[in-house]
Amino acid sequence: MSISSRDPHALAEAMLAGDRVALARLITVIENRTADTAALMAKVFQRCGHAFTIGITGPPGAGKSTITSALIGHCRARGLSVGVVAIDPSSPFSGGSVLGDRIRMQKHFLDEGVFIRSLSTRGSHGGLARAGRDIARLMDASGKDVVIIETVGVGQTELDIMEVADTVVVVLVPESGDTVQVMKAGLLEIADVFVVNKADREGATRMRTELEMMLALKSSEESDGWKTPVLLTKASAGEGTEQVLDACMAHCEYRKTHTQRSAALRLRAEVFEICEEEIMRRLRRATSRDSVQATLAAVADGAKDPYSAALEILGDRGRLTDILSSGEEK
Amino acid sequence: MSISSRDPHALAEAMLAGDRVALARLITVIENRTADTAALMAKVFQRCGHAFTIGITGPPGAGKSTITSALIGHCRARGLSVGVVAIDPSSPFSGGSVLGDRIRMQKHFLDEGVFIRSLSTRGSHGGLARAGRDIARLMDASGKDVVIIETVGVGQTELDIMEVADTVVVVLVPESGDTVQVMKAGLLEIADVFVVNKADREGATRMRTELEMMLALKSSEESDGWKTPVLLTKASAGEGTEQVLDACMAHCEYRKTHTQRSAALRLRAEVFEICEEEIMRRLRRATSRDSVQATLAAVADGAKDPYSAALEILGDRGRLTDILSSGEEK
Repeated sequence: MSISSRDPHALAEAMLAGDRVALARLITVIENRTADTAALMAKVFQRCGHAFTIGITGPPGAGKSTITSALIGHCRARGLSVGVVAIDPSSPFSGGSVLGDRIRMQKHFLDEGVFIRSLSTRGSHGGLARAGRDIARLMDASGKDVVIIETVGVGQTELDIMEVADTVVVVLVPESGDTVQVMKAGLLEIADVFVVNKADREGATRMRTELEMMLALKSSEESDGWKTPVLLTKASAGEGTEQVLDACMAHCEYRKTHTQRSAALRLRAEVFEICEEEIMRRLRRATSRDSVQATLAAVADGAKDPYSAALEILGDRGRLTDILSSGEEK
Repeated sequence: MSISSRDPHALAEAMLAGDRVALARLITVIENRTADTAALMAKVFQRCGHAFTIGITGPPGAGKSTITSALIGHCRARGLSVGVVAIDPSSPFSGGSVLGDRIRMQKHFLDEGVFIRSLSTRGSHGGLARAGRDIARLMDASGKDVVIIETVGVGQTELDIMEVADTVVVVLVPESGDTVQVMKAGLLEIADVFVVNKADREGATRMRTELEMMLALKSSEESDGWKTPVLLTKASAGEGTEQVLDACMAHCEYRKTHTQRSAALRLRAEVFEICEEEIMRRLRRATSRDSVQATLAAVADGAKDPYSAALEILGDRGRLTDILSSGEEK
């Protein structure tokens, strides 16, 4: 059976045929960022495009997981299957709450129409953003109707991951800081839907008014006809979350009738990201090559500084080709 | 005069001769991560090794800047010149406090024996860690006795930057979360000195006891003879900060009599980091090359998926070498 196969390409075939276990295993393979990743994703990419991908981001503690959990419920009630990628670039000081978040989604774990996967890869830097996107695409290709990507925090990794989303929901709470910080964080640019959660707290309506004012200042050309809504929710009590899904669906419809110039540019940019990741993988493997051993030994001995050593390797066309041209392990 | 020169190598000469303006300009050059970076740093590296480098890290709001400011004062009172690199990987929701931090250090700005530089480079990822290290080395080479690297937060970028420090001070407050999170964050491994700041708050002594217990559990082999102290401070009132500097100096002395096996390994690892950064720079520039234009156009048109396009570029030995082997702009 292909399910028990260790060959990732066989797993991909099984996954594309709707096998749930194969999807789970393939996610693990993709998460590990092996030499096979790009070839596997090239196969998967052809089958992408069915799912509507929603990105959910915002500062820690804003209630993103509670909203995600509510959106899963609303999607299921509408007969839509859902894939969730929950990404935690592990800010170590939010560790506790993340566990709580996952527990909050627990009620959906036994639902066959829901597939939830958490990614928490300390120290993988850019790799995490790429893994997150790839796994969202795996879920798309596996036939999920809606894919939700939820991130913890609003750092660069999260913004990078959001590029794969069709619709980006930014969740804030009155305590998130003032709206100037929202602007500084670049959230005004990426949000298709704003949610002010914990709307019963002081400052919620003021935050909504400020956000609406800032959104009005964005030139109509820039906003391209879409009027970013600012919704109030009290997700823990289930209030207002149905409207969040409605707003996402409305944005999904809007996208269909408006050309997405930026999408082509983003795919172009991805070519280099994929090259980057693979080149870095080859470079890290190069420590074992004879052609760099002597240089590294000189650095370890203190006979050469690391900058001169790097320049030596970079300046030697033959050596560089040797290091970078092969994807196979040696 | 070399000060007005735009040639970075002339700037480096002037900086090494003690020119303060040249140092400021060279920092900007290095911050910009141009093709010249590695060659400049190779020149600078030869003159490094005089300064004692202290890294200060910990979660936002722990009082790192207040402690840094106090340490500057204590160093100056002991006749030591100080360079400070304050690094803010711009978590957008800490924007306000960072500005406040810099203001707190303001009293040292007119002191000729103190050189303070903030780095805040949104979206530069790994580049920020490398820039931070390089600038700490510039300050070392410029003749500063003590270089302090202060980071906001405890993410991977900050941990990477800390590798250049001789002594790492981890600042916590009773509110930082429990000590299990300290362990999860890898802070137990990197801390040479622990500081529990805001020691008048509830839980400070309990936090100290817990940290001491965890430190005692580390095998004596691992700790290599150094007993990591846990100090209580109330930095805003100037209480206990002199002892922090004393502990750093004690660790500095300890290092002199103990072989630093890890230092050689770190320098070796840096060779690849420097290669990585330069290769990425060359790759990003490659968008304009004829050899990749057709591939990118196919992706933008939707005729090719980005994964297949990347594999095409990576699989063509000649094209890859063409893209990556030259450092010159074309």
